Order: sequence, then structure tokens, then C-alpha cells
Amino acid sequence: MNRSDNIPAPAVRRLSLYLRELEVFQNNGFATVSSRRLGEALHLSDAQVRKDLAYFGQFGHPGIGYRVPELIQRVRRILGTDKLTRVLIVGVGNLGRALIAFRGFAKHGFDVVAAFDRDAAKVGLEVPLSNGVIVQPMRNLPAIVKTQAIRLGILAVPAMAAQEAAEGMVQSGIRGILNFAPVTLQVPPSVAVSSVDIGVHLEQLSFQLSGSGHP
Amino acid sequence: MNRSDNIPAPAVRRLSLYLRELEVFQNNGFATVSSRRLGEALHLSDAQVRKDLAYFGQFGHPGIGYRVPELIQRVRRILGTDKLTRVLIVGVGNLGRALIAFRGFAKHGFDVVAAFDRDAAKVGLEVPLSNGVIVQPMRNLPAIVKTQAIRLGILAVPAMAAQEAAEGMVQSGIRGILNFAPVTLQVPPSVAVSSVDIGVHLEQLSFQLSGSGHP
Repeated sequence: MNRSDNIPAPAVRRLSLYLRELEVFQNNGFATVSSRRLGEALHLSDAQVRKDLAYFGQFGHPGIGYRVPELIQRVRRILGTDKLTRVLIVGVGNLGRALIAFRGFAKHGFDVVAAFDRDAAKVGLEVPLSNGVIVQPMRNLPAIVKTQAIRLGILAVPAMAAQEAAEGMVQSGIRGILNFAPVTLQVPPSVAVSSVDIGVHLEQLSFQLSGSGHP
Repeated sequence: MNRSDNIPAPAVRRLSLYLRELEVFQNNGFATVSSRRLGEALHLSDAQVRKDLAYFGQFGHPGIGYRVPELIQRVRRILGTDKLTRVLIVGVGNLGRALIAFRGFAKHGFDVVAAFDRDAAKVGLEVPLSNGVIVQPMRNLPAIVKTQAIRLGILAVPAMAAQEAAEGMVQSGIRGILNFAPVTLQVPPSVAVSSVDIGVHLEQLSFQLSGSGHP
């Protein structure tokens, strides 16, 4: 049974948002923060903040509020990002290369340690700005997942190749997929999938704009 | 009053997902599709599909189902992506450059026509793989928004610079922001914001994995 079964998904999602805000408070030199201030920027009530955090433990100090560095540390531990997590990436096109070079991963506790592509012309090349990640053929996937004990993979292949690539990842032992391909992946229920579809986001904004002024 | 006020946000969001699936059916050579088949890959019932689409018009043909090319065309028109929409980007770091090079934008009807950065060392340089987009200083933002009639902007600056940059975009006339910075932006209610926080997605996957096996 997963621990996450017991806690509402929106509360887990908001835990990431609290962490973002706490990092801002820390960068601005705050040592403590109240539930009211923590919720303010997110348009959440102090009661909601306290209720969400109570799912995960007892964090507040009476008369003080939350100690910022302590709460950051504890939230990271809950999310499993207090230690560096190795991730791999499948698909080294434009988006894949950008994701590998994206420094935000390291800041959140993720280290892209291996990259795969089915294009033989890319295999063997070093990914720019990657600290030495060499593109490997897809057939190496199972061995790398096993020897490096990787459980999380980023999928950045074109839509038409996504389902097959996802199946290869799952069969190799990957247990969580961050999917950038604009398709709904079919994977076993034991595999977690989180999808980022940039086109969907843009379309939703476009719809809201095109609606303005039309009754 | 916005047209979008009348339609539930989840139905608008699913409209993008239907479009994704319809494009897959089209690529696979299907001329028509039933509501059942359209919903299948998204784990939605045929009744849900019909109800969602009914918010936007009458699309089905008795005994035939939906004609794939026709429904694609009509959904794109509803989303406002049947014509190429000009967008600008603020922040030409790693992620910004990747987004500019990302061919997925054009496929969804968006054309990145201008890029801005507050780093003087970047200003005047051409963005790689961008079809000639030159990085401009932030002070040019209002004039470009006006002369090119741009309403949609992508924000790809670091967290600490995001709020200020967003305010500059809004003051220049931008009405929709696709935000990649890991902060909650404070903008007037008339401005639409859609946020993509890759760190949050990874943390949520990490939490689900770290929970496995722990009661």
C-alpha cells in the first residue's frame, strides 16, 4: 500500500507549492513564518495551510509559527527530494536537450544521469551543458536502470513514439514517468505518470483570450 | 464577460485532450470516430465526451459519429488556434532558448516572434534555431506588444525575477502568461495565467515513489 493513498492528492500538490513559497521566504531572510503568511501568496486560508501540513506531521511552534529552514528540510524529506535522485531521459531532441541543460532539476534534488535515443546518429554524442551525459541506444535502458537503481524517467520523444518508449521504460523497471509527449500514456497502475503538455497550456490560454469581449 | 465564464474549466481542458486524441486518429488514417472511441484512451465515458462537446456546439453525425478532420478544425477554431498566434518570450536562459527552439509551438498554432532579456550581454544576439529571433532589451517590450498586437507571453525567467517581469508584461498589454517560473504570480484578474512548474511535477512523482512499500 502506498503512503500516498492516505493523503488527498491536492494536499500533496500543495506541499510542493508551500515548499516554493518557503524557499522565497528563506531567500528573503525570514527565519519564521505564520500559516497565514504562508498561505497568502497562494490565496489559501491559514486553516487550509494548517490542515494540509497536519497530514504529514506536527511542524508549528506555539507563538513562533513555522521555522523556515526546519520546515523546508522536513517537507523535502517527505517529498523524497532531500537527497539527490537519479533520473534518466528518453528522447534527446530539442526539448530533451533543453531539459537536460535545465539547471532547475538539480535545485529540486534531481540529477539527470543518463540519456537515451533511438536515433543512431545521436548515440555516442555528449549532450551539451549536461556534465558529460552521453546519448545511449535504447537497448542499454534495462541495464542502466538496474545498475544505477533509477526509478524516475523523463519522456521527451515525439507523440507517435511515446507509448512504445514508455513501455520500454516500464519494462526496464522505471516506476515514475514525467511525460512531455502530447499523448495519454497507457501504463500499469503501479507506475506513476505526470504529464506536462505545453500545447494544452497554450490552448487553454488562447481560449480564455479569444473569449474576452464575446458574450 | 468572457465566453469561458459559461463553460466549466475541466470541459475546456478536456477539449485540448480531445484535440490531441483526434490528431492521433487522423495520423492513423481514421476518417470518423465515435464518442466511445474518442473517450477510451482518456478513460472517459461516451456520455462525458458528448456532454463536453455539447457545450461548444453540435458536432456529431447520426450513424457516423464525428468526422475527424471536421472536428479537429472546429475544435481548433473554438480554442483560437486555427490561425497562427504570435507570442513573445521573456527570459532567454537555458529554458527560454529551449522553448523558442521547441517545434511543438508551431504545430499547436503558436509562433514565437519576439524574445526579451534584461541581460545586456544577451541583447542583440540571435536565438539559435529560432528563425531569426533577436534578443531585445526589456524596454522594447511595450512597443513590440503594441506594433505586433501580441497578447500572449511566455515567462521563462528565474523565480526571483518573475513577478517584476510579469508586471512589465501586463503593463505592456499582455493578456495571457504561460509561466515557467516556480512562483505564484500576482496579476490583475483580467490577465490569464497558466503555470508549468517542472519541479512540482517531479516532486509529486518522487512522493508517490517514496511512499511505495511504506505503510
